[in-house]
Amino acid sequence: MEESKKKQYTIRFEPSGLKIKVPSGAVLLEAAHKAGIYLSSICGGDGYCGKCKVIIDAGQFQSKPTALLTPDEVRENVVLSCQAKVLSDMTITVPKSHTLETSQILMDSDAHRFSELPSKVREGIFEHDPLVRKIYLEMSPPTVHEHTADHERLYLAIREQIDAPIMQTGFRLLQKLSRLLQSSDYKVTVTVGRRGETTEVIQIEPGNRCEKNFAVAVDLGTTTVVAHLVDLTKAITIDTEATYNSQINFGEDYIRRIIYAEEHDAFDEMQNRIVNDVNNLIVTLATRQKVDLQDLNAIVCAGNTAMIHFLLNLDPTRIRREPYIASAGFVPPIRAAEVGIQINKRGLLYCLPGVAAYIGSDIVAGVLATRIFTQKGISLFIDIGTNGEVVLGNKEWLTCASSSAGPAFEGSGVKHGMRAGAGAIEKLTILDDGSIELKTIGEKHPVGICGSGLLDTLAELFTKGIIDRTGRLKDNGQPRLTEGNEGRQFQISAADNEHHEIVITQPDIDNLIRSKAGVFASIKVLMEATQTKAEDLDAVYLAGGFGNFLNIQQAVNIGMLPDVQLEKMRFVGNTSIAGAKTVLLSRKALETAEKIAEGMTYFDLMSHPSYMDEFTRANFLPHTDLSLFPSVSAVKCEM
Amino acid sequence: MEESKKKQYTIRFEPSGLKIKVPSGAVLLEAAHKAGIYLSSICGGDGYCGKCKVIIDAGQFQSKPTALLTPDEVRENVVLSCQAKVLSDMTITVPKSHTLETSQILMDSDAHRFSELPSKVREGIFEHDPLVRKIYLEMSPPTVHEHTADHERLYLAIREQIDAPIMQTGFRLLQKLSRLLQSSDYKVTVTVGRRGETTEVIQIEPGNRCEKNFAVAVDLGTTTVVAHLVDLTKAITIDTEATYNSQINFGEDYIRRIIYAEEHDAFDEMQNRIVNDVNNLIVTLATRQKVDLQDLNAIVCAGNTAMIHFLLNLDPTRIRREPYIASAGFVPPIRAAEVGIQINKRGLLYCLPGVAAYIGSDIVAGVLATRIFTQKGISLFIDIGTNGEVVLGNKEWLTCASSSAGPAFEGSGVKHGMRAGAGAIEKLTILDDGSIELKTIGEKHPVGICGSGLLDTLAELFTKGIIDRTGRLKDNGQPRLTEGNEGRQFQISAADNEHHEIVITQPDIDNLIRSKAGVFASIKVLMEATQTKAEDLDAVYLAGGFGNFLNIQQAVNIGMLPDVQLEKMRFVGNTSIAGAKTVLLSRKALETAEKIAEGMTYFDLMSHPSYMDEFTRANFLPHTDLSLFPSVSAVKCEM
Repeated sequence: MEESKKKQYTIRFEPSGLKIKVPSGAVLLEAAHKAGIYLSSICGGDGYCGKCKVIIDAGQFQSKPTALLTPDEVRENVVLSCQAKVLSDMTITVPKSHTLETSQILMDSDAHRFSELPSKVREGIFEHDPLVRKIYLEMSPPTVHEHTADHERLYLAIREQIDAPIMQTGFRLLQKLSRLLQSSDYKVTVTVGRRGETTEVIQIEPGNRCEKNFAVAVDLGTTTVVAHLVDLTKAITIDTEATYNSQINFGEDYIRRIIYAEEHDAFDEMQNRIVNDVNNLIVTLATRQKVDLQDLNAIVCAGNTAMIHFLLNLDPTRIRREPYIASAGFVPPIRAAEVGIQINKRGLLYCLPGVAAYIGSDIVAGVLATRIFTQKGISLFIDIGTNGEVVLGNKEWLTCASSSAGPAFEGSGVKHGMRAGAGAIEKLTILDDGSIELKTIGEKHPVGICGSGLLDTLAELFTKGIIDRTGRLKDNGQPRLTEGNEGRQFQISAADNEHHEIVITQPDIDNLIRSKAGVFASIKVLMEATQTKAEDLDAVYLAGGFGNFLNIQQAVNIGMLPDVQLEKMRFVGNTSIAGAKTVLLSRKALETAEKIAEGMTYFDLMSHPSYMDEFTRANFLPHTDLSLFPSVSAVKCEM
Repeated sequence: MEESKKKQYTIRFEPSGLKIKVPSGAVLLEAAHKAGIYLSSICGGDGYCGKCKVIIDAGQFQSKPTALLTPDEVRENVVLSCQAKVLSDMTITVPKSHTLETSQILMDSDAHRFSELPSKVREGIFEHDPLVRKIYLEMSPPTVHEHTADHERLYLAIREQIDAPIMQTGFRLLQKLSRLLQSSDYKVTVTVGRRGETTEVIQIEPGNRCEKNFAVAVDLGTTTVVAHLVDLTKAITIDTEATYNSQINFGEDYIRRIIYAEEHDAFDEMQNRIVNDVNNLIVTLATRQKVDLQDLNAIVCAGNTAMIHFLLNLDPTRIRREPYIASAGFVPPIRAAEVGIQINKRGLLYCLPGVAAYIGSDIVAGVLATRIFTQKGISLFIDIGTNGEVVLGNKEWLTCASSSAGPAFEGSGVKHGMRAGAGAIEKLTILDDGSIELKTIGEKHPVGICGSGLLDTLAELFTKGIIDRTGRLKDNGQPRLTEGNEGRQFQISAADNEHHEIVITQPDIDNLIRSKAGVFASIKVLMEATQTKAEDLDAVYLAGGFGNFLNIQQAVNIGMLPDVQLEKMRFVGNTSIAGAKTVLLSRKALETAEKIAEGMTYFDLMSHPSYMDEFTRANFLPHTDLSLFPSVSAVKCEM
């Protein structure tokens, strides 16, 4: 039977009251997406992440049995929305756990968390030479004795002020040039943009408008999109803003989103979402700072390879599939308007270059921002997010790898894992009396555990002797140990009338250990390949929203980070946007980023002979080889 | 009263039968243009060239008296269509003298006249390196061990075959790249175009299509547009074609057209006309040679500065007005589609660079084609058309000037002057018995006199003693001398039942002498400025449709060309298209053309201190200073 001839049913979602008509047999998760309702989903609708639960208040549906629902949940008509098919009109309640709204500008602590950058990587080592600059020209008008054509006259005047051996002017602008020069008495402000070796005249305005030259630096994260509004003339950041990546409806990690886009031919939709997010940020920043959108002349984006591909609508399918390559690592500057970004219609969009399918331009930006490529000593750069990218190197060589251990620290595959939002447990200490001290984001009642809280939990369970070196919950009479659907679990906070209990299960612990093992094994492969020992490391940079909040000693204790002196470890925050901003403000920095990307040696761990061994060895707390963790073994491993 | 409320009248034009409705008071010339009917007009509708005559068969009109109509013509209801206003429905007969149809492809002798190029400038001195070339690439597909991204893989493969340090790819093409490479198993033909130092990938096709790479070279003349279809792979001209420039409705010289465009805001219309002419030529050539328009990847245009401005819709108004400058001398390559030229939609349009408002890229093309910039000896290059551009120089220096003496040799300001069309007298000899031997184009009955015929006429009148050294018709009893409306005149052919008489009047002769004086004075200014004597000249190149057919000795006799040995004089035909084609086939040639344009010293004659004196001296036959014309004075000037 054709879709169009199927019976149509109305689904009403509470508490929003939003309604949508769908054909018989439609999947509830997709119905919610169509209605514009955000439901968490990590697996992208395959029925195994268990995040997309909703409550059926009324109506008929069909669903498969699943181990991801407790008997209580089944009794209360909770279903996995991705597994439920509509068979009648329905009323659905969306639980509060899904309250994260897409396209909502992040406020307060969240915005702060993602947009701030420690000042220590802010000072420039590159001269101020923005990718797009404005130059005021006072030309002498032509006379019968000095009859240089307008186009050449303009170029001569520009070259008196800047080094621009190769120049070009868009055709439409060239057509307007003469009338514009005449009407402004040959006193104009030209906006010139760098396109590789070429300097392009992108705008000509009457009079002196040099002060009005703004741009946006953007970090395209899988979860969060961050934008900084920059005054290019003064070389200062005016304002910052962040939003959730609204592609999140189609899967929490980018692999899921690529699959979704392939299965639903939704590449355009993916692009629209991310472009809208960027536009929302731009409009918010520009409105708040009273900057005319026409005075935004450039945007520089850094992000993982998939995000850059989605933004530009390049084919991303082989990022997830053999031979695991990008369509383009280097992307030439294009007009921002070509992808729908709402800055000056002739303004330029620059994407920082990436290295490989799993080492994107966010990592290149990080290397640029931390300047490890200028140092004699060896540095380690770690960005722990969905993947966990690692760079090891110095001014002479750079290596990189990406662990695909899964995003457990982002909450995936962890029963009460969640992103760093209000109510997320971000710090946790198990006191000697067995009681637990918690810190939640926004000081709210705990609703789940975010990355830094999960790391604390694992480390505390280990250092307090509640789990053994393989991660097994010991059967030692701990009062917080209970049996759940998934076997043994450890209660972090109890249920009350309004809140559910929060536990960490044995499978959660196993997932977290696999994640940390992936990160450490990647580091180990790079160190082995370059014959670098922990004591050779001059600095360890921890980047990303998660990296900024974790407890470093605990990360060493569980064997995620190598055992180096704590003073060598530095939180560097969002180095992706720091690098993007560096590039925005200096053409030389973009050239340097291109050299970094080109010169970095990528280790494909999946095909690397020793990665699996290293991964297996790292699947212990802290590691099978305790000599790698002297500070940990000395204190705790006698247990 | 609003135009739209005026009474509408129908005008019917015979013999075509074309009809058009116009409001009361409409000008007949404009009505004809709107109906798509070509009426000659040199003055652009100002009522003083007398070329736009039509016969009123029926209907009411209003017109001013004019001396340009004979009493016979007035009796026969002949009017100047530019001066006649419509007051009723009308029927109009368009005389045969207007039979030149616009946009009609020139055939036979005419096409031959404008499109052929003597082989002596054809052999290349530049290596074969076309501006747009196709390269077949067999890349090895990516593997998990060799994971270069598609975009970089493509660049590496291209750089294995050509020198392309700076490359770019259009964004839309980049978006399609990965799918295209996969579906063609990484065996593709790329089309790369040169944009200055940058090599742009403009097309990617599956398989090997290197043989299908064609382009068009175009000479944009004020009167005639000529196109050559070139096989870029084989470096041969496949076919040639020419058409009249259909802007001619708006004035025969480009200054008139600029005025018309300004007064009627008709810049878009001017562009449409010339673009349509080019498209007609392209389609004719491609159809005849069975070349797919999609396989035309480039077009190179040369032309005077005004024509290039009209083509690109750049502001041409200051070409005719102080400070007499171009909007752009150098024009960057653009997509041909941006101006509406119907080749491959990503194909490139190159315009050769011009030097000044009155020294266009056709002259630069001529210098390139004749190679005078490579010679140790000094050459003189003359292109006699509407203006009469002159270049003097060698490998070390190049000077140029343009005489604005008026287009008398193109028929303007000459009672029976006409363009080189069927029936035009192109050769003329006055025999000793006073009878006249004529040769007309197409062996037709004479209907007028074209450039080479006018030159013969002037020279014969002078050398046969019918006019004196000031050009005055002698009152010596010549039977062909009569009195006309404009005073004394010389009859060339008598009227019969079907044909009007053809005469040359005293004002005609004065105009022709002024024209030749302008050319010679320009040459003289350049020679004086560079201290070049006639005997220093190694070669004199005569370019252009007119140059190709004139009698050189006669041109020396009247003092238009300097008195050098005839064997040093060479007809070089259409060097504008020869230069355009040279550029099409060699990137180095384009760079050379740019250097020529940049390095040429332009003499603005109007502001030059000695030009007027030189012009006055040249207003004699052959000159006031007979020592400059030893071969002439020795034989003829004793008279």
